Amino acid sequence: MLIARKIAAVRSFWAHLRGKSLGFVPTMGDLHDGHLSLICRSKRENDFTAVSIFVNPTQFNQKNDFLNYHKDERRDLALLRQEKVDLVFLPSAKEMYKESFQTEVNVNDLSRGLCGPYRPGHFKGVSTVVAKLFSIVRPTRAYFGMKDFQQLKVIERMVQDLNLLVRIVACPTVREKDGLAMSSRNRRLSTQERVHAVKFSRALKVAARAPKPGLALFLKEADLYKKDVDYFEIVDPQTLLPTRKKPYVAAAAVWIGKTRIIDNVWVP
Amino acid sequence: MLIARKIAAVRSFWAHLRGKSLGFVPTMGDLHDGHLSLICRSKRENDFTAVSIFVNPTQFNQKNDFLNYHKDERRDLALLRQEKVDLVFLPSAKEMYKESFQTEVNVNDLSRGLCGPYRPGHFKGVSTVVAKLFSIVRPTRAYFGMKDFQQLKVIERMVQDLNLLVRIVACPTVREKDGLAMSSRNRRLSTQERVHAVKFSRALKVAARAPKPGLALFLKEADLYKKDVDYFEIVDPQTLLPTRKKPYVAAAAVWIGKTRIIDNVWVP
Repeated sequence: MLIARKIAAVRSFWAHLRGKSLGFVPTMGDLHDGHLSLICRSKRENDFTAVSIFVNPTQFNQKNDFLNYHKDERRDLALLRQEKVDLVFLPSAKEMYKESFQTEVNVNDLSRGLCGPYRPGHFKGVSTVVAKLFSIVRPTRAYFGMKDFQQLKVIERMVQDLNLLVRIVACPTVREKDGLAMSSRNRRLSTQERVHAVKFSRALKVAARAPKPGLALFLKEADLYKKDVDYFEIVDPQTLLPTRKKPYVAAAAVWIGKTRIIDNVWVP
Repeated sequence: MLIARKIAAVRSFWAHLRGKSLGFVPTMGDLHDGHLSLICRSKRENDFTAVSIFVNPTQFNQKNDFLNYHKDERRDLALLRQEKVDLVFLPSAKEMYKESFQTEVNVNDLSRGLCGPYRPGHFKGVSTVVAKLFSIVRPTRAYFGMKDFQQLKVIERMVQDLNLLVRIVACPTVREKDGLAMSSRNRRLSTQERVHAVKFSRALKVAARAPKPGLALFLKEADLYKKDVDYFEIVDPQTLLPTRKKPYVAAAAVWIGKTRIIDNVWVP
């Protein structure tokens, strides 16, 4: 397993490729079974697999969320070694953002709704760093979880609009046994909050599939107040605009104590 | 010479490359000796050379400038055949901007000064289309004239910031015998205006190299009124911010009748 901390080291890895396919799983580390499912799929579908670990400062709209983001490089690397990943790209913020960095990639419409207004600059940070990672790694396929549905759509759109030569593979959300979508931020939940988070996930399912899905039902099922909810929306899976026509996606972001969690349900 | 009107056709051209180098000259057609000097240099430095002809609608801030932009595909293709160019990419606007296109690449600081305020959205249009063209053509090197100095700097910055794997080659401005910088827009000048345009180019040189370079001297030498001048500025070649420290670049944009012309002088 090659551990590259410099962009130049990733470039030199290409020498191994010579026409073979490369799968890529970009992460912010603190790997969980959700990430591992992406890695497994990449290994199944490609000759080589690369994983990046980079807690990207530009996509955090709250400084504390960035500072509190859990990091455990040793554990992550041990996991990746076990999974027989071929390349891990572990850049510093300085390696990614040189002095006088000033270029942004912005996917306008899709970044606007859902999490957009609640996380100003977040998707711009995501699309920019993913564009950079794609240029650095040059993968054949890249794997993203459907838990971050809006992120997935933003990246698919960016790839189409900028003619990037990478296939985006959308992978189903991996859940804990109790139904909670896996997320690095789950570890911030207290035992009590964790119970509430599970309730939220179930409520989202119920409210999404109800004959008349809506916020009122969602709040009741989730045992949440309106003030705890950034949004609960039924949207078109392609445009992310509000719709009542199936197939749709019900997506929500809520605060359980001081932790913001998101989830979504696809209704065919 | 392969003429590709579809992106897929360009992709299939890569089969010829197999480790060989590809030079790329993006143009808006109406080719002149300035373009040809870029093509010659590309042919000298690469195994293959590709040229794109695309009058990019998103970089025009004035609809009439776009509509009046001179097009002569037959003549351009004959010239390129003569130059033994390997690939010409001639997409339609629809091929480049599919429905629901919404992604922008923006180089923030460098797009702000000089032409920036006078051509709102222009550099965003340029950086976005060039990012697309680079993804489509995937050249080893790309050639840009120094006449469009700000454009060159914006693109160099974009390539660095997004880690694009292409080398930007800056080529000296090619001039008519009388000193006027070659430009497709020159053909819009009347005989009288043309004389004035030459005066402008000379004035820029004089004002740039004067012990105390400044707008007053420039206006006097160019025989222009302040209202005809978008800007005359002495800027740092890297940041494009105003400076008095050499090396600097004196850059100006002026209106000769209804035609806007730009030029710049490097003072070492």
